[in-house]
Amino acid sequence: MMASKQSEQLDTLYKSWIAALGANPEMPLDELRAMFEHWGDVTAEPGGVDYIEVDAGGVPALWATPKGCAQDRVLLCAHGGGYVCGSMYTHRKVYGHFAKAIGCRALIVHYRRAPDHVHPAPVDDMARAYKWLLDQGIAPKHIALTGDSAGGGLAITTLLRAREQGLPMPAATIPLSPWLDMDGTGATFETNKEKDVLVMREIIQNMAATFLGEKGNKQDPLANPLRGDLRGLPPVYIQVGGYETLLSDSQNLAEAVRRADGDVKIDVYPEMQHVFQFLAGTAPEADKAVQDIAAWVKPKLGLK
Amino acid sequence: MMASKQSEQLDTLYKSWIAALGANPEMPLDELRAMFEHWGDVTAEPGGVDYIEVDAGGVPALWATPKGCAQDRVLLCAHGGGYVCGSMYTHRKVYGHFAKAIGCRALIVHYRRAPDHVHPAPVDDMARAYKWLLDQGIAPKHIALTGDSAGGGLAITTLLRAREQGLPMPAATIPLSPWLDMDGTGATFETNKEKDVLVMREIIQNMAATFLGEKGNKQDPLANPLRGDLRGLPPVYIQVGGYETLLSDSQNLAEAVRRADGDVKIDVYPEMQHVFQFLAGTAPEADKAVQDIAAWVKPKLGLK
Repeated sequence: MMASKQSEQLDTLYKSWIAALGANPEMPLDELRAMFEHWGDVTAEPGGVDYIEVDAGGVPALWATPKGCAQDRVLLCAHGGGYVCGSMYTHRKVYGHFAKAIGCRALIVHYRRAPDHVHPAPVDDMARAYKWLLDQGIAPKHIALTGDSAGGGLAITTLLRAREQGLPMPAATIPLSPWLDMDGTGATFETNKEKDVLVMREIIQNMAATFLGEKGNKQDPLANPLRGDLRGLPPVYIQVGGYETLLSDSQNLAEAVRRADGDVKIDVYPEMQHVFQFLAGTAPEADKAVQDIAAWVKPKLGLK
Repeated sequence: MMASKQSEQLDTLYKSWIAALGANPEMPLDELRAMFEHWGDVTAEPGGVDYIEVDAGGVPALWATPKGCAQDRVLLCAHGGGYVCGSMYTHRKVYGHFAKAIGCRALIVHYRRAPDHVHPAPVDDMARAYKWLLDQGIAPKHIALTGDSAGGGLAITTLLRAREQGLPMPAATIPLSPWLDMDGTGATFETNKEKDVLVMREIIQNMAATFLGEKGNKQDPLANPLRGDLRGLPPVYIQVGGYETLLSDSQNLAEAVRRADGDVKIDVYPEMQHVFQFLAGTAPEADKAVQDIAAWVKPKLGLK
């Protein structure tokens, strides 16, 4: 087993970010965000997918609509970027690949980000977009949720928020390399320290402080769902890279869902980095992960 | 006058291509094309633009539709890449910026490329897409043509082909850093040799051979419009970088249009590289060029 040559493109990108942050530790926010806007540069165009911006109940969002897909089946997507960076644009292609493989539409939510809008703004916007889908007449059993990194946290917290609001659960949720623990205490922060080229405890702690703001509580289940009541969730499918410092967050989530009598599957992709699914169309490991998602979620959405 | 710091991103990209080609002179076609697919990585997302793939009379194309634009005004776009590389995806964002600044739709044509399809396949596809627009009920006076590099050649040759076919002329055409001379004999191949970081005579000659195939004629006006009858063209607006080896092609085109009693404007942007408009949203020189295009073409399309 060896990571593909092509997958090195993500390592190269992440290392360039770490180098830029090392050279400029006080990098201004707009520069940091501009750097992260290149996240999707490693993703190939899926092709045959249309992209239409929409106001999803007061929240900007991007429809990714594959030609000939089932219009009434929707993958609701929460992009990553530490609640500070990333956008519906950085994740346009990667979620376009997911939608194409599943045969549904994807709604990529451009939720408000910290520090301009601290917790719970992101989870509130995600829940608002979910409610908007229901208001459009999309059946909850025809909606699956997904998200990567901070968005992987939102792939669970959005459900907790929706439940608080009395909304029905969707058919499934798919957290990818989820970031959950605001302190970065997972064991893999030590064991994968030399293998993960991007995510370090210090970065996690800085982003947590920015995300939570002055009043935020690290133990709030809507920030860290490992602290929440996970009973009654729809089936959960977690994907994570074997080289990630955040691997423990995924393993702890799987264990917590199991303890709450939930249906959970976790796949660890050997030697892969944080959100390696960005390599869709570029590296075989990501293409495999996309196919794994499609195979898992299609029956849950009533798709063949 | 000094090129902006931000504009260096295009230099860096082009230098990485030249380095990759230097390390791998026999680079396979699919690898070359995959490399060029990153052309648009330096372009910022315009935002507020939808992208919809369409069959334009048998030719694949991409609509870039800014929110609230004039739907009946169209910028027909021919991407660059030496008739071998580039696609409707590489130029999605840059032509999205143009459309947004003008307030019209852009149709980015995914014409057939060499060596799979040699000359005249690209110009035939462009003419077909133009005819398709007319067939859709778009008035010729509400259409402007544009293209960059090889597409800058197409911004003229498409008109010659359309005229052969008895089609009416559009309102205007906007060649950007056009490549016209198949031999690369322009004086600026020498004078800008040390300044242009991408375009070298050898690359031009290789691409010309690939584009023309075994039977192609370098003097065919549909390949090199400097050899054509340029009388009766609509107003022409040329943009080119001051550091380009292809600067002579632009100057020779301007002179040829003038000799044919045509209406022509040429702007040379100091210190800029080949198709610097790719830096739209990233560098001020490109944003200026986009605004210059909008200011020039809007009255010609009947837009305020």
